[in-house]
Amino acid sequence: MVTVYFLSSNPHKLKEVRSILAEFGIEVVPLKGKKVEIQSSDLREIISYAAEVAAEEHEVRPIILEDSGFFVHALGGFPGPYSRYVYDTIGVGGVLKLMEGVEDRRAHFECAAACVCPDNTIEVEVGKVYGKVAEEPRGDKGFGFDPIFIPEGYDKTFAELGDDVKKKISHRALALRKLAEKVIARVRYPG
Amino acid sequence: MVTVYFLSSNPHKLKEVRSILAEFGIEVVPLKGKKVEIQSSDLREIISYAAEVAAEEHEVRPIILEDSGFFVHALGGFPGPYSRYVYDTIGVGGVLKLMEGVEDRRAHFECAAACVCPDNTIEVEVGKVYGKVAEEPRGDKGFGFDPIFIPEGYDKTFAELGDDVKKKISHRALALRKLAEKVIARVRYPG
Repeated sequence: MVTVYFLSSNPHKLKEVRSILAEFGIEVVPLKGKKVEIQSSDLREIISYAAEVAAEEHEVRPIILEDSGFFVHALGGFPGPYSRYVYDTIGVGGVLKLMEGVEDRRAHFECAAACVCPDNTIEVEVGKVYGKVAEEPRGDKGFGFDPIFIPEGYDKTFAELGDDVKKKISHRALALRKLAEKVIARVRYPG
Repeated sequence: MVTVYFLSSNPHKLKEVRSILAEFGIEVVPLKGKKVEIQSSDLREIISYAAEVAAEEHEVRPIILEDSGFFVHALGGFPGPYSRYVYDTIGVGGVLKLMEGVEDRRAHFECAAACVCPDNTIEVEVGKVYGKVAEEPRGDKGFGFDPIFIPEGYDKTFAELGDDVKKKISHRALALRKLAEKVIARVRYPG
């Protein structure tokens, strides 16, 4: 059993990450502390900076941390890396209002996940899931913009589909799975 | 003549800051480098962090840097600290769309300005200007959300009023004036 420390204050994310990494035999322990997020339109840049700060502030290894965003194509990628702030201010209703009368409803979720490895190198992997913005919010599972995102190949929102589907196809699952393979390799065969 | 170094990549801001500080006999020299902006709903927190990083990365003193945002009250403060990103993605039109049918049009601009002083202490001052969101964009002076902000006591937008008025009443002018008084005191009577 490999143990990793997950730096996040979001219990929804912890639950998802636990469920994704359990399949690799990885045990996830929450790590308390501040995740320093810079302003950038690039999630990879945001999580790399956060990982460097985490590496300085914590002694345990490996540390995993992630940042995700909801990118609406017709809105220039908005809300993107600021999805949490936008969710807390104008909310799902605000994004739907911005999309009123807009034909191009393409959107994607993106996750950048980083690992501070036992040898202090930092690995970053990105996962994306494409789909479209729903006409109205549906479903009560998940969190954030899940109720208005319909992934490609489905006719239900993430909030209707729930964890069993998200665990397979979500941006977070894709990024963490790539990372998990690297982490396991590093822990088992260090150096 | 006192000289300060202004860390910013925005030529509009440099012009405004020059004009504001000229009245104090302060010469403003642009300082090249990255301003590290963290994600936070509090401009004071953002600029304090940026100032600490700037203090480590640059040897010149005093360094001045600022961060500003446009806060729409009915939208929970949105776009706030992320005004630049929101301007670049959904733009002025997006904010007006969010305000369609909204009666409470109160808004304010806020600026947090920091100075890394010659003795390496960091001073932060905040300036705010209250007003309302215009029904449509007007004027071609200024930048960002200036065309849709009507300050209290006026019936024109910041983009119609231009630099002569902004220099007197703007959030940036208020914050920098407070800071200028401190900077001059520190430079003239160090310690």
